[in-house]
Amino acid sequence: MTTLEDYLEMNADRIDRMLHRYFGNVHGDLFRASAHLLLAGGKRLRPAVTLLAADAIQRGSSDDLILAALSLELTHNFTLIHDDIMDGDTARRGVPTVHTLWDEPTAILAGDVLYAKAFEFICLAEGADAAKIRAVKMLARTCAEICEGQSMDMEFERREDVSELEYLEMVSKKTGALYGAAAAIGGLLAGANPVQTDALYQFGINSGIAFQIQDDLIDLLANTEESGKDRASDIREGKQTLIAIRAREKGIDLAPYRRPLSAAEIEGLVTILQDAGVIEEVRAVALERAGVAKEALSVIPESVEKQLLGEIADFFVNRGN
Amino acid sequence: MTTLEDYLEMNADRIDRMLHRYFGNVHGDLFRASAHLLLAGGKRLRPAVTLLAADAIQRGSSDDLILAALSLELTHNFTLIHDDIMDGDTARRGVPTVHTLWDEPTAILAGDVLYAKAFEFICLAEGADAAKIRAVKMLARTCAEICEGQSMDMEFERREDVSELEYLEMVSKKTGALYGAAAAIGGLLAGANPVQTDALYQFGINSGIAFQIQDDLIDLLANTEESGKDRASDIREGKQTLIAIRAREKGIDLAPYRRPLSAAEIEGLVTILQDAGVIEEVRAVALERAGVAKEALSVIPESVEKQLLGEIADFFVNRGN
Repeated sequence: MTTLEDYLEMNADRIDRMLHRYFGNVHGDLFRASAHLLLAGGKRLRPAVTLLAADAIQRGSSDDLILAALSLELTHNFTLIHDDIMDGDTARRGVPTVHTLWDEPTAILAGDVLYAKAFEFICLAEGADAAKIRAVKMLARTCAEICEGQSMDMEFERREDVSELEYLEMVSKKTGALYGAAAAIGGLLAGANPVQTDALYQFGINSGIAFQIQDDLIDLLANTEESGKDRASDIREGKQTLIAIRAREKGIDLAPYRRPLSAAEIEGLVTILQDAGVIEEVRAVALERAGVAKEALSVIPESVEKQLLGEIADFFVNRGN
Repeated sequence: MTTLEDYLEMNADRIDRMLHRYFGNVHGDLFRASAHLLLAGGKRLRPAVTLLAADAIQRGSSDDLILAALSLELTHNFTLIHDDIMDGDTARRGVPTVHTLWDEPTAILAGDVLYAKAFEFICLAEGADAAKIRAVKMLARTCAEICEGQSMDMEFERREDVSELEYLEMVSKKTGALYGAAAAIGGLLAGANPVQTDALYQFGINSGIAFQIQDDLIDLLANTEESGKDRASDIREGKQTLIAIRAREKGIDLAPYRRPLSAAEIEGLVTILQDAGVIEEVRAVALERAGVAKEALSVIPESVEKQLLGEIADFFVNRGN
């Protein structure tokens, strides 16, 4: 019996190999800029979800759908390249961001190239034409939602009164929708019926929301060595995460923490938030979403792959980086 | 017998009506930013090419393909929004550019939203699924080519030694490819066979190259009142157009004109270029491309719509704005 860890490692190797095949030897500044982040590694979770969903519907179908799985990874990377410009981020996955290494115009175009390739690759996968058309439509709608989510996220940075409902809408668009599409597209191309496709979408979107909430917790709780990220950056930047929203509801003022923080100050804040029950509550919301995700899978027949999909939802809320 | 002028006017009205239906009443900053340039008018030439190509293959088919025609207009507008950011342009179609009215992050996202809608709309058109998949692939490849063309265009601004071959490659990607896709997608969705589809693509790409060369001529020759654009901006910015390349070949140094120019200075330069035969030669290249475009149509059966397509190629090189 494959463990999820083994599966994800095998999958990441396979996806990396394919990405190197298609993007490892490109010519010219623009295409090298497009390939830069793609080739810097990553956990390749969205392709894993696509391929597991396909095999959960029809075992063996994933072999024909690698290009569709790549399409989800390309979409993810296009959004990262554009987001990094907007957010002014200088590093990701341990390498300088595209607009830092090249320039903003090149980064805009590099993202646009991956965007096009995502749609091309989904058409190049095997599968019935009607299913592919549905997959293209779903990917297109998802891309528009991701843009909306990123727009909300930026708008929230200028506000102090973001509600939990607004936060969940933002996260479900910015992060959840692409996991929803990853699962549903894998299913669709493998021949899932509409009920199964919808269930896979619900699985993905709820997993993605859980993933993002866990990301917020990791930002606050994990040491920089563990997470590879700047600890408590959300708090320092005044981001309206679920942690910040629940803290505000409990009368904890995070405004004084909107500045460079020492490790001791961060620990102090974590203790305050823990004592008020904020961390536990936020964690409960993430776990609940992972539960909803797994429950959605009940209409999918039992299989190893369905089992692994469920474990992915658990992994999303238990990972430490 | 419909004249081309009547047809284009009728078509622009129809496309404008559809755009208003889909984008006239959107909510939120992001979607308003996406709609801004779309609703500012335009000649709607790419949708016209799509619909005429469809009717040239199968009369009446264009009625089912309006959404595919919109897809081409959305693609064009997405590239304009992103190009305006990269080029730092502040006005287009008589209105402020998206990044000027909102900000750069919103403009990046607004373009990305139209990009997604372009792929969604092409799937929503009527037509055989297999043809739609081919259309999506063609649109995706075209988008990547447009990015490459824009990247070359920006790179050329930092060079003085661009060859005619390089210029033609850039123009065929930046402007030609989308006209090629507009014609071929219209044909594909109307049931064109591969020979016809390829001919329509060749018609479009050569028309588009002719269009761009004429654009360069208009920039230099037309009064600001006629063209609505800043006269001789290409010369002032040191753009490597076919005019600049041919002038260089004849030993005419345009470097001294890379600065604010009076109307008299522009007239003086035009006389120099005319006396050297540059204007006539560049015009001949545009006319030759329009001729190649029309010749490509020889495999398409005679019809009013084929006739109008040919007239579009002529119009591209005879228009004054």
